[in-house]
Order: sequence, then structure tokens, then C-alpha cells
Amino acid sequence: MERTKEGLKERIRAGRGKIAAEKVIKGGQLVNVMSSEIYPADIAVYKDMIAAVGDVEDYIGPDTEIIDATGYYLTPGMIDGHIHSECSKMSITSYAKAVVPRGTTSMISGLDEYISVSGLEGLQEVLAEMKQSPLKVFWGAPYKTPYTIPKSTIAFNFTEDVHKEVQKWPECYGVWETVREFLQEEDEDTLGAIAEAWKNHLPVFGCAPMARGNDLNGYLCGGVRLDHESYDHEEVVEKMRKGMHMLIRESCVTHFLEENIKAVTEVNPAFARRVSFCTDDVVPSDILEKGHLDNVVRLAIKAGVEPMTAIQMATINSAEAYRIDDQIGSICPGRIADILFVKNLEEFEVSKVMTNGKMVAENHKLTYDLQAPERSSVLKGALKCKLTTKEDFEYKASIRNGEADVLALDVKGPFVRKRRDVVLQVKDGIVQPDPEQDVAIVSVLERFGRNGNKSLAFCSGWKLKKGAMASSAAPDDNNLVVMGVSAEDMSIAANYVIEQGGGQVVVADGEIIEFLPLPVGGIVSDAEPEEIAAMEKKIDEAARDLGSDLPNPMMYMFFLPITAIPDYAITDVGPVDYVNLRTFEPVLNVREK
Amino acid sequence: MERTKEGLKERIRAGRGKIAAEKVIKGGQLVNVMSSEIYPADIAVYKDMIAAVGDVEDYIGPDTEIIDATGYYLTPGMIDGHIHSECSKMSITSYAKAVVPRGTTSMISGLDEYISVSGLEGLQEVLAEMKQSPLKVFWGAPYKTPYTIPKSTIAFNFTEDVHKEVQKWPECYGVWETVREFLQEEDEDTLGAIAEAWKNHLPVFGCAPMARGNDLNGYLCGGVRLDHESYDHEEVVEKMRKGMHMLIRESCVTHFLEENIKAVTEVNPAFARRVSFCTDDVVPSDILEKGHLDNVVRLAIKAGVEPMTAIQMATINSAEAYRIDDQIGSICPGRIADILFVKNLEEFEVSKVMTNGKMVAENHKLTYDLQAPERSSVLKGALKCKLTTKEDFEYKASIRNGEADVLALDVKGPFVRKRRDVVLQVKDGIVQPDPEQDVAIVSVLERFGRNGNKSLAFCSGWKLKKGAMASSAAPDDNNLVVMGVSAEDMSIAANYVIEQGGGQVVVADGEIIEFLPLPVGGIVSDAEPEEIAAMEKKIDEAARDLGSDLPNPMMYMFFLPITAIPDYAITDVGPVDYVNLRTFEPVLNVREK
Repeated sequence: MERTKEGLKERIRAGRGKIAAEKVIKGGQLVNVMSSEIYPADIAVYKDMIAAVGDVEDYIGPDTEIIDATGYYLTPGMIDGHIHSECSKMSITSYAKAVVPRGTTSMISGLDEYISVSGLEGLQEVLAEMKQSPLKVFWGAPYKTPYTIPKSTIAFNFTEDVHKEVQKWPECYGVWETVREFLQEEDEDTLGAIAEAWKNHLPVFGCAPMARGNDLNGYLCGGVRLDHESYDHEEVVEKMRKGMHMLIRESCVTHFLEENIKAVTEVNPAFARRVSFCTDDVVPSDILEKGHLDNVVRLAIKAGVEPMTAIQMATINSAEAYRIDDQIGSICPGRIADILFVKNLEEFEVSKVMTNGKMVAENHKLTYDLQAPERSSVLKGALKCKLTTKEDFEYKASIRNGEADVLALDVKGPFVRKRRDVVLQVKDGIVQPDPEQDVAIVSVLERFGRNGNKSLAFCSGWKLKKGAMASSAAPDDNNLVVMGVSAEDMSIAANYVIEQGGGQVVVADGEIIEFLPLPVGGIVSDAEPEEIAAMEKKIDEAARDLGSDLPNPMMYMFFLPITAIPDYAITDVGPVDYVNLRTFEPVLNVREK
Repeated sequence: MERTKEGLKERIRAGRGKIAAEKVIKGGQLVNVMSSEIYPADIAVYKDMIAAVGDVEDYIGPDTEIIDATGYYLTPGMIDGHIHSECSKMSITSYAKAVVPRGTTSMISGLDEYISVSGLEGLQEVLAEMKQSPLKVFWGAPYKTPYTIPKSTIAFNFTEDVHKEVQKWPECYGVWETVREFLQEEDEDTLGAIAEAWKNHLPVFGCAPMARGNDLNGYLCGGVRLDHESYDHEEVVEKMRKGMHMLIRESCVTHFLEENIKAVTEVNPAFARRVSFCTDDVVPSDILEKGHLDNVVRLAIKAGVEPMTAIQMATINSAEAYRIDDQIGSICPGRIADILFVKNLEEFEVSKVMTNGKMVAENHKLTYDLQAPERSSVLKGALKCKLTTKEDFEYKASIRNGEADVLALDVKGPFVRKRRDVVLQVKDGIVQPDPEQDVAIVSVLERFGRNGNKSLAFCSGWKLKKGAMASSAAPDDNNLVVMGVSAEDMSIAANYVIEQGGGQVVVADGEIIEFLPLPVGGIVSDAEPEEIAAMEKKIDEAARDLGSDLPNPMMYMFFLPITAIPDYAITDVGPVDYVNLRTFEPVLNVREK
């Protein structure tokens, strides 16, 4: 129901039983996360609102639908406390199909990847999409974009002035993922965003992995309320003792629950009050196999947390951390009717799901056909960069033939890149990639029609023997990233993604081997989660067929533009030395032969 | 420190230890309300901010003052979750002198009495006064004023349009004391205020005594977050199971702690998480004798609550209920430095108090001379009503001589007025008060220069044998209330209060017997709490000398204009039948003789 004056009248009448409930859920056991009690209680639902809980006979009218909950526990819908759903390659619609049947009915997100490719216009379109989906998004405005140092190119820069506007929107619930270093360096836009949030009484969400001691104190004095990045439980303990709300992240890439939950199970059960869960980054195959927050709840229970406490962590605790407990997180009058039907709390298999007052899922599947909206030109727009030629991916040397000393970005894991010094051959004025030495070329092409930037560097670790791959989904800039050992194939790969309006491609010997279309903003797809999962698998297999033995060669590639990862990165402005926060020249020296 | 961009830089630097702390508190036992732990920890304070907690050696510079806390527990400053400080007759400055030495460092208030007499201009002046006092006020905008039905006259009406303006102020933390009946009756201003609060992500504070079942459900569907009025612990339990934050009120007039705390001690300890304390209405003598929130904490401990839990109720729980836990309620980096030094947690005697980073009180006394600010004409302005004559307090009859059947307001307690039918004599065209029958005249004079309203009615229960009394402090309108059995004395009393620019007076036989000046807005005084307590005592003694055997004759009188109290009231628009929500004619019938 609209949160307006007129909507209020209807809400109050429905709450008093002056309008009959549309649905009454009868016979279930209420998991009351507010009181930590479980007892039989019926629930009256009017439109998307819980009108009454307990004895609801007064709320039943001739048209009230009775939903039998005998044999079920009724828990609040779960809240993902920090997620970039875009990184799953699923659109909001597609993502809802994957996670809502698992019991995730709300998520906190900056929707920052959408903003990077489509600005506030695209954001509005996504927020509208969300409203017709069974998944709610509580949006936080990114503290500043681009996140990169030095500043790279994206479609829309989030600045202090933008904060002054968007923080007034009712859809804005805080400041998203404020990275500690930007506070510490007193970045003007970041401090402006926080000062504005204080004025507007909005919480500041954080991102401070390994912040301890004085660094943590400084961060907290900057006004940050919560964090989702702790590398061990002692870090969790220090942050919580110092007043932070903690989101334990259990993502597909990083598994922190087992370690971090020790703060509660081994150090002090009182911490449970302000612990909640998030998944941050997920891939569809993982959700389809293991589940989503339901899996995190199961892991917590397995780690020794009481089911009631684990459910609170997945529901009310997140809602309180983000100050949205007036809307979600509990089964109470006036809250949005997001209700899970669960047979057994220890096993925590979500059998049925109600969101916004509608039964929408059963047995891990939506029970109705959810259609993605028509996309406007803002989100289905073509990539705004020129088609390439093979010359675009050739690194020119100042000599005709000889050797070059090169600093290559050597990938040591998805989030670690180290320096590797290699000697490459120069032929006909071009520094050659070298499959024998595991050195490929990597390039980032600005793709928003802003400046036509194009960077080139050398990388190592992929073990490509041939071909190329490219992706227009590449957080957090989502410029077009291309990697390969053949300039021809790199050009074919880049051009194919440009022509298709976004996606990921693997090319070998001049042929398109595999393509995963990402037509929405060049970053996500409206396809079914199963379909996206299957395509992702094929893309990685194709990339491995080029010679790579990395677990996810494509993902390792598209993380390369993130400059917050030590020690090296590459964006459209060039390869970046993250330790010294500057771009650098990868060819250090040349010798003619 | 200012919560601005520039302020942020300084905060972050101080938090990191790049600027030395001004003070370091050493050797104390930290009562960590975030983790429910007690352990030794030092505290670094920079300006009004806690910069670091734990090992703070890095924060000590050559000019850092070391405060020895050996032998003390260090707890956060306490928060009064709902208080009309004006009703104590103490100005903010004076009130701070009474409660801060007892450990109350913050209060949530609508400052609604100030607004009723001086509008937003006066409010701004009070907020400025607060900033130079050791007591912080977190202000909620009154849901609508006047609170009366039918609408009476005050200096400034709080409407939906006013909410649209003031809710944008950083000083506005929510909507104050939203009375259930106004939601239920779908009052336009009230619903407008709530809709606006939703837009601005501000919490709605409630007031719903005895709301249960469907009425409570309707109220919660109206979006109210918390309540401070429950008449028994079962009401507390129902409200909390349905998701409300509960403030247990322990005021000078109504003592609810012993009963309401049973929700925690007898029903379910899990409720403790969202229980906090408030005092609502206090008088200076009570604070001087028993204490303030420190007394409430002692009462809770006596009732079986663990000291840690009771302290949480007085600190972090209130802060979370009102969503101000980023500023106060715990001893954590970045929070305001409000710290209590307590020798023994069970006894909970507050020995020393730091607020806003300054040591301000010891042994129940401020340690420095706190001066009230110069008052502008807005707050020290004269009462804007004409001087009266005895005729103003004579009830004219339509006959010369005979009898009148009269409906008198019969006081049965501070908050109950019942109908009493009496027969009064009519002499020379005037209905006579009758001391023998315990019937006096009561009048309310509009005093803001808006319309010159004046009402007359008959009342019973005061047993006045002679004289009159008057008060310009009379919540929630604060018009001039006059009561007496002599029209001459009533006029003298009214005129004296008008001439003095506000106060309370007792008059007998044409003489001023006792006067309590209330020069600030006509409702409060800048005098020392001890002085106000002594004057209050004298005023009541003088009123009792007129014949009254009520415990607080003056207070019973000045509550008469509150129309929310069953069954009768009187405002400047006339005597009010609260059951039928209309004014009425107190003389029902006359008979000539």
C-alpha cells in the first residue's frame, strides 16, 4: 500500500478490522522474532500488509481467503543485508526468481552496477522493476562513484551534489558501502555524502575489511554504522564491542560464516543481537544448488546457533541494522506481509513463500509467471564504443625488433594481483604476448560514449594458449574488458560484444566459441536463472579450452578493473599501481636487437 | 563537534589518533552496553566525542588531561525516553541542573509546551539554549497542536504543513506523542504528519494507553513505533509481541515501573531488548529527593532486573528505539562523550558525570556555574491578555434571583473529572459559587493575543473556602487558568500573573499570599531547582490554606484544560464534555424566586 495519507486511512481501517482481510493464514506456529517466542497464532493480511496477528476471527469476511498453515512454522521473509545482485548476471526479475523461492524477500543494495552503466535514469527503471517483482530492494546511495583511484570512466558519477538530491528520495535508505580508505583520505565527495546523511538521519553503511585499532576508531568517528567485511571473528568482536552492527558475509567466493560466527558461539552470545547475514556476491548455479539465505541460516544452525537466533539474524537484525524494521523483518501488525512457511526449523527448508501479501513460491519455484518489464533505451542501449581493429590490441614499442622488460599483472586469486617481471619479444614494433611464458594482453575500453578511452597492459596467470575473451560486465565500472594472446581474436571478441549490445564471449581462431548475452545494461540478463547458470558454465569451459586452469577464468578477468584490490588493476585510464594509486607504463625498458 | 564535512575531517583525524585527545579517562571498568560485558578499558575524548576506547596510549599528547577512574564503573549517560520538562516548571537550563548530576544526559521531548506558548521561534531559542547546556534534547515534532477537541487557542498550531517544513530540520528526530484516538479518527493533520515522517524515514512516537487487540493493531498499521503508556504488564507484553518498543514510565504522578517490568521479570527476559525508561512528568522536589533515571534504574534492579540490563534500558535501548544510537547510548568511538562514573552498579549512585566531553557534575551537583541565556521577547514576552475585572469572573444568569441547576466539573484525581449536579443560588443576576457545597468558579483566559477568549464554568473537589488561585502554566495550552470562590480575588490573581509576565499565584481577601514566578514563556523559571521546589511547596501550602485538602491543589487545577482526560475539561473555548467532544453550557436550568 502506498505510504501516503490516503494509504494510511486504509491501513488503519484494515488494522482495526473495519475492512475484511484478503487472506488469513490459519493454524501455523508463529516464529515471533520480536519476543523470541514460538506459539500458535493466525495472521490477517490486507493487500501487502499484515493487519493482525493472534486471534484474527474479526478480520474474516465473506471473501477472505483462508490459507492453511497447519504443520508449518511461520517466519518473516529474509533480508540479504548486502548484495550486488547485478554481479550474478541476473536482472532483478531473474534474481527474484532465484532467491525469493528460497525465502529471501528483501535485499539491501546500492544497485551500483546499474548506476555505473545507466545513471539515475536506469536506477529509476530498476526501482520500478523491483516494485512489480516479489523481491524488495532497499536502496543505499553509493558513497561515490567511480570507486576507482585514479578515477576511471563510467556512465554516471555519484558526487556530493547527487547525494544532496537523492538522499531526499523516500527510496533512499542510506549511504552504500562507504570504503574506509576514502574516509581516511578525507575524500571530499565521500565526506559530503556522510555529512548529508547525518542531516537526513540516514545510516552510513560501511566496508572496512581488516580495520582494527586506531584505523577502526577513525572509521567509526566518521559515522559508519555497520560493516559486512571481517576476515576473522576477532575482527568481528572488536567491531561489535565498538558499537558496529555486523553482517556476516557468506558469498559464493568468500565463505566467512564458519569463522565469523565464532564471535557468537565462542566469545559472547550477547553479540547475536546485532549480527545479521549477507551474501554480497552470488552466482546462479550456487543458489540453485545450495540455496541462498536459507543456506546461510542452515550453516549458522550447524555452527551451533539456536534456530530462533539464526532466523533473527536473517530477519529482524538486518532490518534493525538498516533501520527498516518498521517495514520488514518481523510478523507484526503494520509490517509488509513477507512470510515463510517452514516445516522444520532445524532443517530450515522453505516450503512456501508469501511476499507483499501474495503466495508466490512453493518448493523452491515461483508459482506464477513473472515477466521482466520492457527495457527502455537507457538499459538496453547499445555499447557506446567504436568497433575495434586488431591494431587496437597491439602494444606499440619504440623499437622495431628486440626485447621489452614488462611489468605484468599476475593474478594470484580472484582478489590478489602481484607484480611479475617478464621479458617479451618486440616484433615489427609491437610487444608480443607470450603464451609460453603465460603472458597475455588485457585491454579496457570505455563504453559509455564519454571519451573513447582504451588501455593496454600485460597479464599473467590465465595460461591462455590461444584466442581471446571479453566481457561488458566487469564491476565496478563495467567497461568492456578484453583479454587474449591474439590481437585478431581480441578484436573479434570486443566487436561481437559491442554488436550484441553486451555480454561475455570466448573467441578462438577467429570463431565465436561461446556467448552469454547480457542485454540489460550490458551487465545482466532476464533469462531464467537455470539458463544463465548453464551459459556461465559453458563460457568458463570455453575459456578453459583456451588453456586456462583457473576455476573461473572469466570472473578472474572481469575483476581486473577493481582498483581496491592489491596490488595491480587496469581500468580505461590505464594499468593501475594500487599501492601508489597511480597509472603506470607496463613496458619498463626496451632493447633493440 | 558540528556534524558537517569539515567537522568530519576533524572527527576522523581525532579518531585515528592524529590529533591528541583532550582527555583520557584511565583505570575504569567499562560497562559495555553493546556487548553486555564489563571489563577494564580506557577512553580517549576529543572535544565532545569519544575518539577511542580500550588501549588509548596513542591518543595521549602533552596537553591531554588524564582523568583517574580507578574504582569506578563507566556507563553511558542516561536517556529519558519521554519527558515534558516544561511541566516541571524548570527551564532547560534549570532542568539540566537537576537531572544531569543524576546521570540523565539526554532526553527525548516534543518541547510542546514551549511551542504552544511561543511557536517555532521560541522552539529555536530553546534548542539554542540546549546546545549550551550539559543536557541534550532530541526533539520530536508534535503530531498536531492544539491537542484539544474541540480546538482551543494557543500561540502556534502545529499542522501538516508545519510538519512538511520542520521534518526537514536536522534537529527533528520524529513525530512526538501521536495519540491513538487521532489516528483512529483519521485526523487529517495527524495522518499528514505520519505520511511525511515515512517520506523522511523518521520514527513516529506514540501514546496509546490501554490499546489492546484490534485497536492496537489499527494503531500499529498507522506506523507508530513505540509507546510510553501501558497500564499493566500484560499490555506491555501484547504491545511488544506486536513489535513495539516500550518505554516504561515512572513519573512523579504515575508509578508504572513495578507493574510493567513484570513483562521482563515474570513473562519473558527477551523483552528486555526493547524496553527503556522515561519519566514523562516530574517535579523538582521529587528529583532532589529521589533522583531521576538513576532512581528508575535502582527500582528496576530492586524489581529483579540485572544491573547490566537495567543500564541498557536507561541507555542504548532508548537510543535504538529513537534511532539515535549513532550519537548516544553507548561508550563507543564516534559517540558523544556522555559518561557516568558509578561506584557500585547494584546501588547505582552516580558519583560524577561527563557530558559532551566535559566533567560537569559531582555528588549530585553541577561543578560549574551554568547560566541561563538572555531571553528574547518571544520567551519573556508579557501575557497578551487584558487585565480583568471582577465582572469577568461572574457567571451571569438570565434571572435576577433564584436557583440554578449546574453541571460542575468534579475532580476525582489528577486525571479524572466526573459530572456533579449541584443547585446554586442566583443573586443580582449572578450564579454564585458555593464554598459550603464545595463549588468554585473556574475560568480560562486566552493569553496569546489571538482572540481574547474567556470561558467560565463551575468546579468541585478543591474545597476552597475563600480566595483564588491562578496559573499561566497549564498544559497543554498554557492559557491562564483561574479558580476561586471570590470574583474579586480571581481578578486580582489573574491580573497579578498578567502583570508579572507569568507564574502561579494564590490570593485571599484581596492579598497576594504566594507567588511563583514563571517568567520564561509564562511556564518555566530559570531559578535553581531547590528554589523552585521550595516555591512550589509554598504555593501548595497557600492553596491548602484556602481550604483545599488535595495533595497538589495547583496541579489539579492546571490540568483542567487537558481535554484528553475523562470526562470533563475546560479550555478557553468553554467547558468541554470529553465523552461527546463538545463544549457545553454549565448552567442547565434556572428558577426565579
